[in-house]
Amino acid sequence: MSEDKKLKSGSTALTSRRSFLNTAAIASLGGLVACSEKPSSMAASAAGSASAHAQGSSNPAHLKPGELDEYYGLWSGGHTGDMRVLGIPSGREILRIPCFVPDALVGWGITNESKKVMGTKPDGSLKYTVADTHHTHASYKDGNYDGRYAFINDKINSRIARIRLDYFICDKITELPNVQGFHGIFPDKRDPVDQKINYTTRVFCGGEFSVPLPNVGTDDSSQYRSLFSCVDAETMEVRWQVLIDGNCDLVATSYDGKLAATNQYNTEMGVHYEDMMSAERDACLFFNVARIEEAVKAGKFKTIGDSKVPVVDGTHAANKDAKTALTAYVSVPKNPHGVNASPDGKYFICAGKLSPTATVIELSRVLDWFDGKLEKIDGAIVAEVELGLGPLHTAFDGRGNAFTTLFLDSQIVKWNVAEAIKFHSGDKTAKYVVDRLDVQYQPGHLNASQSETKAADGKYLAVGCKFSKDRFLPVGPLHPENEQLIDISGEKMVLMADHPVRGEPHDFIIFKRDLVRPKQVYDLDEFPLAVKDAKDSGVVRNGKKVTVKLTSLAPAFSMREFKLKKGDEVTLILTNLDKIEDLTHGFAIPKYNINFIVNPQETASVSFIADKPGVFWCYCTHFCHALHLEMRTRMIVEA
Amino acid sequence: MSEDKKLKSGSTALTSRRSFLNTAAIASLGGLVACSEKPSSMAASAAGSASAHAQGSSNPAHLKPGELDEYYGLWSGGHTGDMRVLGIPSGREILRIPCFVPDALVGWGITNESKKVMGTKPDGSLKYTVADTHHTHASYKDGNYDGRYAFINDKINSRIARIRLDYFICDKITELPNVQGFHGIFPDKRDPVDQKINYTTRVFCGGEFSVPLPNVGTDDSSQYRSLFSCVDAETMEVRWQVLIDGNCDLVATSYDGKLAATNQYNTEMGVHYEDMMSAERDACLFFNVARIEEAVKAGKFKTIGDSKVPVVDGTHAANKDAKTALTAYVSVPKNPHGVNASPDGKYFICAGKLSPTATVIELSRVLDWFDGKLEKIDGAIVAEVELGLGPLHTAFDGRGNAFTTLFLDSQIVKWNVAEAIKFHSGDKTAKYVVDRLDVQYQPGHLNASQSETKAADGKYLAVGCKFSKDRFLPVGPLHPENEQLIDISGEKMVLMADHPVRGEPHDFIIFKRDLVRPKQVYDLDEFPLAVKDAKDSGVVRNGKKVTVKLTSLAPAFSMREFKLKKGDEVTLILTNLDKIEDLTHGFAIPKYNINFIVNPQETASVSFIADKPGVFWCYCTHFCHALHLEMRTRMIVEA
Repeated sequence: MSEDKKLKSGSTALTSRRSFLNTAAIASLGGLVACSEKPSSMAASAAGSASAHAQGSSNPAHLKPGELDEYYGLWSGGHTGDMRVLGIPSGREILRIPCFVPDALVGWGITNESKKVMGTKPDGSLKYTVADTHHTHASYKDGNYDGRYAFINDKINSRIARIRLDYFICDKITELPNVQGFHGIFPDKRDPVDQKINYTTRVFCGGEFSVPLPNVGTDDSSQYRSLFSCVDAETMEVRWQVLIDGNCDLVATSYDGKLAATNQYNTEMGVHYEDMMSAERDACLFFNVARIEEAVKAGKFKTIGDSKVPVVDGTHAANKDAKTALTAYVSVPKNPHGVNASPDGKYFICAGKLSPTATVIELSRVLDWFDGKLEKIDGAIVAEVELGLGPLHTAFDGRGNAFTTLFLDSQIVKWNVAEAIKFHSGDKTAKYVVDRLDVQYQPGHLNASQSETKAADGKYLAVGCKFSKDRFLPVGPLHPENEQLIDISGEKMVLMADHPVRGEPHDFIIFKRDLVRPKQVYDLDEFPLAVKDAKDSGVVRNGKKVTVKLTSLAPAFSMREFKLKKGDEVTLILTNLDKIEDLTHGFAIPKYNINFIVNPQETASVSFIADKPGVFWCYCTHFCHALHLEMRTRMIVEA
Repeated sequence: MSEDKKLKSGSTALTSRRSFLNTAAIASLGGLVACSEKPSSMAASAAGSASAHAQGSSNPAHLKPGELDEYYGLWSGGHTGDMRVLGIPSGREILRIPCFVPDALVGWGITNESKKVMGTKPDGSLKYTVADTHHTHASYKDGNYDGRYAFINDKINSRIARIRLDYFICDKITELPNVQGFHGIFPDKRDPVDQKINYTTRVFCGGEFSVPLPNVGTDDSSQYRSLFSCVDAETMEVRWQVLIDGNCDLVATSYDGKLAATNQYNTEMGVHYEDMMSAERDACLFFNVARIEEAVKAGKFKTIGDSKVPVVDGTHAANKDAKTALTAYVSVPKNPHGVNASPDGKYFICAGKLSPTATVIELSRVLDWFDGKLEKIDGAIVAEVELGLGPLHTAFDGRGNAFTTLFLDSQIVKWNVAEAIKFHSGDKTAKYVVDRLDVQYQPGHLNASQSETKAADGKYLAVGCKFSKDRFLPVGPLHPENEQLIDISGEKMVLMADHPVRGEPHDFIIFKRDLVRPKQVYDLDEFPLAVKDAKDSGVVRNGKKVTVKLTSLAPAFSMREFKLKKGDEVTLILTNLDKIEDLTHGFAIPKYNINFIVNPQETASVSFIADKPGVFWCYCTHFCHALHLEMRTRMIVEA
């Protein structure tokens, strides 16, 4: 506590702790996870905190039954492979959107339509059934979300998925070539050249793991490299890639469209973790988007392996002259994790992870460097201040304050960016730390309402705590994580609620509910295979190839039964003719491993070989009507 | 409202509505789903209800951060194929337990251990990846839960799964032979003969869809039949089955172990829905467990197709003499849905679904019939009272009151069983309806704290509403369902909270938290393949067969890299040597479609062909430590 007080006065009291961190023997690192050593004492302090912040009826997280949330939250699901949609401030999970991983509820990975989005092997089976989503961000217009798309990464297989924010479904997935460990992701906010394009047209993707390029079986780790990729937001094709020194972690973009950046925790390009943390400073790597695209246009690129994507050279060696450089490496202390753009458009902030500091980089100065007006790129650093142990990610309230997670201290620290700059520039009376709040436990990402837009409104902050420990009833060895909601409307942060969540969400965004315009009923015309009238139902045979056309209208399918012959190659098409919002039907075929849903006015299809003779009751799996249990049709497969 | 008042006075005012229901033309049935016709008016009434029940700080659902719930809830996940674990009264979902369907988070369906539980085809791929769980119930001792097991059904593929309630994991799955549409499930509560066995040893399973027996390609629907199955709770093998007339829906068991029952909505044995609802009365079918097991012991059974499970004859024709009958068919009005045992052990209650009534059956009278002391089995009916439109399921408060969902009225009705019996016996002054509460919308299952035990405590009631409509922010065509929590401690029901939930949970149980004793860290000895010491790590080669042994201890895997040759048949075994509660690691292999977790002291293994040459960064996918991002090992596959 005394240390906290010193921190609040902006002193350098943390120097000894920082030294400890930087010089810690590898063997000591296990001890960095405070939670593994003192869960009971932390629990005690947590209980105190909870009681101090006990909320009565005014707690905004406690919506009355039937009240709607003010904000949407889009959360990555982690290695559940999906995207989560929450209501804020209640913290209620309203939807999970399957992307990279099959979802038995909707038939994602079962229907032909979803398999086409997900990608299949030559034999028609899914190429991948696991994924690891970390970061989700939405498309912009004029510095705020425009409700068109969200994007999300799969770290395991280096895929990017796009979500349509009208129907809240994934419609495209692209696998990045020659990238392993695709981690950070961020859409641009306008075009760097054509200022009329004031909306998202690109998505930037950071490759975290360095590998041989191409990765075909050689193993000289000194030759491993990482790529930074740009994906077209509309076509979802990879436009270009940048070969870099070091690796990519998270990604941020500037509001003027000119700069993208990634923090780098392994500038050492080590392959063992002690090597990855050997340097005192790593980097925040900036990309000059316009220059990169000029270079591509001018043919100054190579390609790697089978990929046709142009790859420009962003290494140190090739970018020594600022006036032609495609990239700029700003140094940042020890293994930074997280780079975040302030809503005033002025700064990127990198947190130090293994350094107790945050580094504030002024973007106009980075542009000055590219213009030859700033001699050393590190001159763009306008603050580097100590916040506490294990700083990771930063959110903003739009009133000049930043909120950074302290993983090791299990805290959120609220700090004032202008005061931090003053302090850094020599004014040691500047008090940049405004408040601290204990969270439970070990926070990773955090984000505030509208924080990643020019309309940051400083109302609610959510934080994803990596360990829940004793905060919920015990449920065996696999603990949920703990999402905590915090009221940041006042000077002091106030903890509102704990919510358990299936591991493990990483990043997320929170935005006002009027920024999206969801469509609640599909349009029949969106589906080329739609069976638009129950009268069109039937079994169409062409040799062994059989098409079964069905419709649903509560409480019945359009055919009471249909007959197939053993060995038939069947495509079954089902259109839900119900128009009522929320009137979804399911369709399961026992023993044939088929189940999927059709929402109102939706069409879906499945293909299978009728290899098992018998009578199979295909039934509605999604409650629809008083006669739901009776809503069935018989698939009769003759031997 | 006037109708409600009349109902409360126990009058027969509903007769006209009931007549409507029973004589409704098929064409009118679409209109039975009230929600599809008047969403706006219902929303208005809901808002009124929410405001009337607005809760201040005393709302028990609003736990303060860090406060623990008093009760566990075990919920079926529906066609997500898993089991959900909730805390009550907060309604927070703490865990999803994968059972029948792969789960990318834990690697369920990826690891060899989980594939063995789930079942594979000859080529090693999973037999099924879809499922539809409906009902979950837990094992008993002395009429209360004993914290050993929970059981859950898969309706699509007729499988039953067992959950260990120490580790909260699925450990066994059994596919029922010759059953399609396995729906209701209930453990017994003691042995019918040996009263020393005062705990669960059997689980009863209801087959809903009638099919040819065996189902091998013939199609004479007059020969379709359903089976009622008994599974051994320890071995999970099918002990016996009963061939019946009509079908099975839900299942209940008596506290004395002597009786099991299933409600039957299709005594007509129709294959089209209008046939399924043509009879005015269907049935609640009772099974005399001791007599069935005597018959099996005496060899009075047949087998069907390839199955070796003994099947006894429970049809009407074979059970005309009560004194030797294995089964008894009690008549119940029109398409009943739900059969529930009252906590005093005296009654089973069947709700009418297409009749506005609930039927109360006295178990001692059913036993009297089996003993030849009651002439007609319908003499066991002690009440049949009108409750409202679309009654489905019933819960109890342990104070003599029952709570029944009214699907069409979108209400919960609280009614007094003793008063209903009085009313039925002729005392028209008996006021059996105690209270009504609007819910949002179309409730299916409901359950109350401890309701299915002798320790029913009448504190909280949860209800699964099938449609959420306007209760949450819009998220596209697929709406969540709405789980509502209700305080039933007083005379009047009070709505506490709405929670959105991914479709679609069906049944669930709620019990006191001290009834389970979860283990939070595994025992290394539970895993035959455990790599108990990091020193035992390594690559063991036997021709093309290669075993990779690894351990994890934050922040590193025991090997920094390991080498394979293209084409190797690899089994990789990973033991998590971390002992700290909540310190789980993940293990992903890019491009190899592998990801799984190992909880503290857990071992898991995966097998794959090393068919892609290159360097693959296997990384920890489950946040563990400040150096989590750096926790990796390289799998180098030489070309």
